Amino acid sequence: MEQDAHLSAVTDSTVSPIRDSAAPQRTLLKGQQTRAAILDAALALASNMGLEGLSIGALAEVTQMSKSGVFAHFGSREELQISVVREYHNKFEEEVFFPAMRETRGLPRLKALFQRWVHRVSMELDSGCIYISGAVEFDDRPGPVRDALVLMVQAWQSALERAVKIAVEESHLQQDIDPLQLVFELHGLILALHHDARFLRNAGAIERVRTAFERLVGHYATPAGLLILNGAKSAAPRASRAKARG
Amino acid sequence: MEQDAHLSAVTDSTVSPIRDSAAPQRTLLKGQQTRAAILDAALALASNMGLEGLSIGALAEVTQMSKSGVFAHFGSREELQISVVREYHNKFEEEVFFPAMRETRGLPRLKALFQRWVHRVSMELDSGCIYISGAVEFDDRPGPVRDALVLMVQAWQSALERAVKIAVEESHLQQDIDPLQLVFELHGLILALHHDARFLRNAGAIERVRTAFERLVGHYATPAGLLILNGAKSAAPRASRAKARG
Repeated sequence: MEQDAHLSAVTDSTVSPIRDSAAPQRTLLKGQQTRAAILDAALALASNMGLEGLSIGALAEVTQMSKSGVFAHFGSREELQISVVREYHNKFEEEVFFPAMRETRGLPRLKALFQRWVHRVSMELDSGCIYISGAVEFDDRPGPVRDALVLMVQAWQSALERAVKIAVEESHLQQDIDPLQLVFELHGLILALHHDARFLRNAGAIERVRTAFERLVGHYATPAGLLILNGAKSAAPRASRAKARG
Repeated sequence: MEQDAHLSAVTDSTVSPIRDSAAPQRTLLKGQQTRAAILDAALALASNMGLEGLSIGALAEVTQMSKSGVFAHFGSREELQISVVREYHNKFEEEVFFPAMRETRGLPRLKALFQRWVHRVSMELDSGCIYISGAVEFDDRPGPVRDALVLMVQAWQSALERAVKIAVEESHLQQDIDPLQLVFELHGLILALHHDARFLRNAGAIERVRTAFERLVGHYATPAGLLILNGAKSAAPRASRAKARG
């Protein structure tokens, strides 16, 4: 993996340290476990209700803890929201970014990034993607939650941009491509998938995204890139691993 | 104009009649004017806060009316939300659909529909598009508000689908095109525009959409269609009217 081994490197500073750092050593581990359990519940709640649907009170109810118990781990609703954004981001990294980065440089990697992204969004159709719903919830609400969301989304878009640039270096995509234009259009396909499958309940949206991806990337591909796009694996053995649909 | 002269024809049944229909004739007009003023304020409020941010109380505050005064015009929060969806739809029809329908059949009309859509979304960047934010707010909230939103969005997508089909009939687009695939991808571009310009505050998103539109539609265009796409007007004089950027 290269310098972009972490999506979240730039965002660590947005998250406050654990509040119980003054607690005795022996209770620290338990405290972290409790915090992780609360965070899991918060992530599920936010996926369904939106980040704005999160509150210390609602979370206390779901986790059957006292409000002051939840409050001990997340000092404010805002800190809770930011922690949820970060947790979502970590899961996104684990499921989409890291496995795709193990693919061969160039189009195999870009294809894996996109396919895993599609897979993740389609897995989330019952709950909703926090990046997508968060963007709409916070687009005109300045503050640290919006800032954290923007940083995460920008980190992901930068990772895609780098993958496109590497595909150009590997002569899989044409030299004169505008990487950000391609990232913009790929993102549009994901947003249309989320909209049509989740809001309109249209069957076949995933198939539409795949069709569009082949046509869009095919438009910019070199002859070598087209071979990869149409399913031929590149020489490196890694390319056959970890197909995105699995 | 053809049979699709109204986007909203299918949706009339979703809106309740005006509540004060039992009021004396002479106060009817005033009642309608008041209702229209409340609706304007409600639309502005919903554009900023989301449809879920609408309440009889908030609206009473903004319009400096009593809660019971607002309540007399919109018997419930749900009826208010549906009325706002319908009002938004009417404005969308006026600004996007009707003027574009005056363009020449085929690619000039499809191009006008899309350009006016882009224009409308870019005008809304400070407030937000109720279709887009509503889709995220209501994607997992069944009920009449969601139903009304879905009907409006489907009516618009059907209008786009018909425009694509007519462009095929006019031999501006290739015969083997899948109209719904093209509509899906056009919609993705609009969603990416809304996201990047409004949430990420990226400059240049409108230019990216235009670039993508030319490439996307160009991919499916016939030689005659390419001429139209690249700016040559078709023979009919109407095609030069009402350009979308104005």
